[in-house]
Amino acid sequence: MKYILILLFTGIVANAQLKTTSLDLMPWPQNINLTQGTFALSKNFKVNITGNPNPRIFVGATNFLRRLDNKTGLFFEQGFFIKKNEAPEAQVQINCVKNGKIGLYEDESYQLEIQSNKIIINATSDLGALHALETVLQLLQNNGTSFYFPTVMITDFPRFTWRGLMIDVARHFQPIDVIKRNLDAMAAVKMNVFHWHLVDDQGWRIELKKHPKLTELASDGNYYTQEEIKNIVKYADDRGILVVPEIDVPGHGTAMLTAYPEIGSKTVNLNSNSIESKTQVSGITSYSLERNAGIFTPTLDPSNPKTYQLLSEIFDEVCPLFPGSYFHIGGDENEGKDWDSNPKIQEFKKKNKLANNHELQTYFTMQLVPMLKKHHKELMGWEEIMTKNMSKDAIIHSWKGVNEGVLSGSSLINAAKNGYKTVLSNGYYIDLMQGVADHYSNDPLPKNNMLTDAEKARILGGEATMWSELVTPLNIDSRIWPRAAAIAERLWSDENITDINSLRKRLKGISFRLEELGITHIRNKEVILRNISNNQKTEALNDFSNVCEPLKIYSRNSGGTEYQMYSPFTLFADACAPDASDALAFDAVVSLYLENKSLENQVSVTHFLKKWMDMNTKLIDLSTNAPLVQPLLPLSKSLSAISEQLLLSIEKKQSLNSVVLNDLLEQCNSKNHADVELAVYNSLKKLIK
Amino acid sequence: MKYILILLFTGIVANAQLKTTSLDLMPWPQNINLTQGTFALSKNFKVNITGNPNPRIFVGATNFLRRLDNKTGLFFEQGFFIKKNEAPEAQVQINCVKNGKIGLYEDESYQLEIQSNKIIINATSDLGALHALETVLQLLQNNGTSFYFPTVMITDFPRFTWRGLMIDVARHFQPIDVIKRNLDAMAAVKMNVFHWHLVDDQGWRIELKKHPKLTELASDGNYYTQEEIKNIVKYADDRGILVVPEIDVPGHGTAMLTAYPEIGSKTVNLNSNSIESKTQVSGITSYSLERNAGIFTPTLDPSNPKTYQLLSEIFDEVCPLFPGSYFHIGGDENEGKDWDSNPKIQEFKKKNKLANNHELQTYFTMQLVPMLKKHHKELMGWEEIMTKNMSKDAIIHSWKGVNEGVLSGSSLINAAKNGYKTVLSNGYYIDLMQGVADHYSNDPLPKNNMLTDAEKARILGGEATMWSELVTPLNIDSRIWPRAAAIAERLWSDENITDINSLRKRLKGISFRLEELGITHIRNKEVILRNISNNQKTEALNDFSNVCEPLKIYSRNSGGTEYQMYSPFTLFADACAPDASDALAFDAVVSLYLENKSLENQVSVTHFLKKWMDMNTKLIDLSTNAPLVQPLLPLSKSLSAISEQLLLSIEKKQSLNSVVLNDLLEQCNSKNHADVELAVYNSLKKLIK
Repeated sequence: MKYILILLFTGIVANAQLKTTSLDLMPWPQNINLTQGTFALSKNFKVNITGNPNPRIFVGATNFLRRLDNKTGLFFEQGFFIKKNEAPEAQVQINCVKNGKIGLYEDESYQLEIQSNKIIINATSDLGALHALETVLQLLQNNGTSFYFPTVMITDFPRFTWRGLMIDVARHFQPIDVIKRNLDAMAAVKMNVFHWHLVDDQGWRIELKKHPKLTELASDGNYYTQEEIKNIVKYADDRGILVVPEIDVPGHGTAMLTAYPEIGSKTVNLNSNSIESKTQVSGITSYSLERNAGIFTPTLDPSNPKTYQLLSEIFDEVCPLFPGSYFHIGGDENEGKDWDSNPKIQEFKKKNKLANNHELQTYFTMQLVPMLKKHHKELMGWEEIMTKNMSKDAIIHSWKGVNEGVLSGSSLINAAKNGYKTVLSNGYYIDLMQGVADHYSNDPLPKNNMLTDAEKARILGGEATMWSELVTPLNIDSRIWPRAAAIAERLWSDENITDINSLRKRLKGISFRLEELGITHIRNKEVILRNISNNQKTEALNDFSNVCEPLKIYSRNSGGTEYQMYSPFTLFADACAPDASDALAFDAVVSLYLENKSLENQVSVTHFLKKWMDMNTKLIDLSTNAPLVQPLLPLSKSLSAISEQLLLSIEKKQSLNSVVLNDLLEQCNSKNHADVELAVYNSLKKLIK
Repeated sequence: MKYILILLFTGIVANAQLKTTSLDLMPWPQNINLTQGTFALSKNFKVNITGNPNPRIFVGATNFLRRLDNKTGLFFEQGFFIKKNEAPEAQVQINCVKNGKIGLYEDESYQLEIQSNKIIINATSDLGALHALETVLQLLQNNGTSFYFPTVMITDFPRFTWRGLMIDVARHFQPIDVIKRNLDAMAAVKMNVFHWHLVDDQGWRIELKKHPKLTELASDGNYYTQEEIKNIVKYADDRGILVVPEIDVPGHGTAMLTAYPEIGSKTVNLNSNSIESKTQVSGITSYSLERNAGIFTPTLDPSNPKTYQLLSEIFDEVCPLFPGSYFHIGGDENEGKDWDSNPKIQEFKKKNKLANNHELQTYFTMQLVPMLKKHHKELMGWEEIMTKNMSKDAIIHSWKGVNEGVLSGSSLINAAKNGYKTVLSNGYYIDLMQGVADHYSNDPLPKNNMLTDAEKARILGGEATMWSELVTPLNIDSRIWPRAAAIAERLWSDENITDINSLRKRLKGISFRLEELGITHIRNKEVILRNISNNQKTEALNDFSNVCEPLKIYSRNSGGTEYQMYSPFTLFADACAPDASDALAFDAVVSLYLENKSLENQVSVTHFLKKWMDMNTKLIDLSTNAPLVQPLLPLSKSLSAISEQLLLSIEKKQSLNSVVLNDLLEQCNSKNHADVELAVYNSLKKLIK
């Protein structure tokens, strides 16, 4: 009886209907036991830290308080943490057994217990404690007048040790603040590896004191100083995140060769009319920074000792900036054209008994292993580095799949079988604008795998890749988030957590919560639409953006030359994103309607059709003072026209001309307008058939 | 006849109705002659640069192209500028006679001529050319299908040479990206001085290599490294902006004394019961970083040689970071309490024949003059430094006014008369949340001034001050912009450009255009409202924010202790801003209605009243799942209640109980809810009387 009373007093009323399914947790914890009580938040909410944690927990606890302040407006009294046990009486008690080491295989587990009057976090290391604090923030609820946490017991740990996000800062440079806010967001969904693609054909983005030419000639002034790199590495470390730098060699070499053409592979025929031309091919080609997107030929010369000298000096400067144990050397997409056409390199191959370009590239890569070893770094590279003589210490980064004409992620399995540690990115290419369901269902270790335990253990996890051909600081967040959160869940949570509907529901909450970290995916959509509208009302544009998605895979920026690396991305396609919300909602009501043509279900469908007709009228109005609206009108008119026909059919029961209807439908399937596609095409098709 | 035909072909149709008054230029140019033609923008739009400019024009021209790309989606072919005369055939020709020097009195004039097929910019220096490019961007028009510039001839130059913005980064630290985007915005409205308030009681924000204790003990980890400072100075230089650093001494000294208590003035009575206590007062007080807002006593000890030793070393490190000729040493709000209570300091005064604390402070300040001279810097300080023995080389920064019990800006006139150069900030305190009209009408050199020409010449200009007690990176932009643009116009344009209606109209356009620079005042309002709404629809909150303004002058944060320096500002008041748009619109329709009670005018008024009743209902709905909406309900209900009464009176012609009505009206005048006031109170009052 006493027990029941206590339950009543501890807020059972507010929490009576709270179920596990109403929690927007992501990644979903391994074990959760929700009970019927509440922990009420108040202004004197305080945190205390005990044990032997790394001081990063002080930063984490300070940020935790500020973010909770943000959400609740309670303005807690506690300010900055600088030491352990500074508030022994605090309601939140965090205990960490040991100082967490940033890197793979570290214990990131935690136990979180929320009782009605206290919150207890126990973790082996501060890394687990940081994860626990993120879970606490995700648990925040309100009853209309105040904020509370539900009483709960959670034990949690990651399924994979490598839960990464790669950002390409070469094709479009991304300033420090973009990187920082994305590190915040990564930590919020318990990702722990930031792979920094620092170099590519379009730019060299890292200061080298010994080789200033690299940034002077090959960065357009857009690069990170070493101090900024250290600052980011510390920022990541404070959030439990390992930073893995990438210097992509020997292909994707235009930037490096713009500064150091003498180590390039391309031959120049200085005297093509002379019989002696073969002896004169040693002239140095000049390179210039690539402005387009694609795969280009500039490649380092593996036969030139200067190449290794330069790389060794680069590693000597870059390695000490990154305390982590891994260094990514790229190694992808070297098509060997400049090697094939260079007689000196062909001779080198013969001399060294290298049968083909793969063996030559292995030779090249193997020279880098000791340069990195010297700095206690293991070499990592894209899957092309996995050839027969490659060191088994290397980590193989699997990226190819159906778009590249091979079985999805096949190199991952091969690598594991061949004795390599390996990380999966195929299927996590978030720059391709595919829906979240595709990424979510992509498991590095699918249930039907035939691997041995030893082989399984080599599969470290996965990594979302944000290639930046089509992103700027304005739109990059909407290309990463919220989809990367679903990948984070795939890599953290149990393999049986696969319900796409649950994911979509929770993703809405997570997407909103990402704003508190400065992620701009929602706010900047409005900025782009406001610009397109020329500062008129954006409602119709917003409605249209909710049924349109950017062209997928590699179909935007055809030929890689439509947009340059200095092009801003402020078009309608940049305001759109995968998983268009109204398209999903429409598909749901169409399915219901086709199952049961009740008036209610009919109204759900016709509501959308009417909305789109109205939207089209408004877009036409808008366009009279907004040229950037013009390119959208063909698609909007098509959607309006078919909506009108469908309304006649559904409401007036008119029979329609199927030829006309199919023609209108196919106009809705056009990929020729404004770099977007109508995401409702398939649902419309269902309605018509 | 031929002439007329040419006019027709060059776009007279599109531009036929364009008048000078439809241009959203700010600051308004000195001379403008709009003609009836157009310059059509196309993808091959290019810029060419000739003459002898500083290379900053290359950065400026690159940014110009990118911003025009942003607005038009044309994606010009031209990429990064790196040299002169790289596109001799370009439609835009920029010629600068000489390399512009960042500092006062430099020639910033320009001449801009837009013809139907070319744009010619002539400027003495690149500084003028940068201003011209901003004017070109502001001239952008469209005809519904394409973008164009009107043909025009503009000659332009600034009225004042000091057009500043101060940002206080001590009370709330503002990261690099906040500073950069505000420098962009300053340049867009032709402001040319960034005054960086780097130090105050709440924090020391600049790295000192010789004195790391300052940031280790007195910054909470929030400070700029010297590399970051240099980076910002370069960024400002590229935009024609002088950076003036401020190290505020001898008052506002808590941060410095937290690191170096031994140079503080406060005495500690180590042995208060002893007769010999007077000989023992030399014990060192400990200080700790101030967390509240207000005026505090910690003050440097002007009698201690160590004080000057430390300051000298600080200046030796800080001065070289700032190539400009001015250094602000603060000098404000030293109330002398700790000086009065320190016998050693009293003795020092006697010994040096210093009659009072003013003379003591002058003694102190005069010690700094040679320290700065050594680095070729002139000393600048807040008006308190102007005492009888102060060096005439000093620049007096006028800040006091009616809020401080003196005549508005009186120190400005006194300084000019006393032979000092001087800058006005009184009346430009944008942190006080006053309407733009107040600032706009505040002229550093009003028409009725009685100054001689020599005295007038000493009035350098003015400076908007953004004190940061109540701002974070989330809301700071909305506190600076768009109001600072009106101050920029006051300082640049002719003294007769004073029409507040024209200003308000143009400010709408300028406000929208500020987004292209990354200014977040519009987008972050939505972020705050979304958080308050708990991710529900924000329409009603937005409607309410358009009639509410944050409490003004010093009435928010009563006693300076309601919010701490680590408090986030994510409340409703932070989403509101001065010059609430619907309040202005309502006042206009009320005036019309009171002049002429036509049905049309009546509907304009009742439209608002109905909107507010509906809004109140929606806010109540919203609050059931959003505790942060609760504090707004009392005001919203008051507004709804009086709206309901007024509707009965206006539409149903019911006569109302004036006691009840006045009671409801006064409830709308409450300052006790959610840190905001209803900006429609006066208009409602007019309707009732």
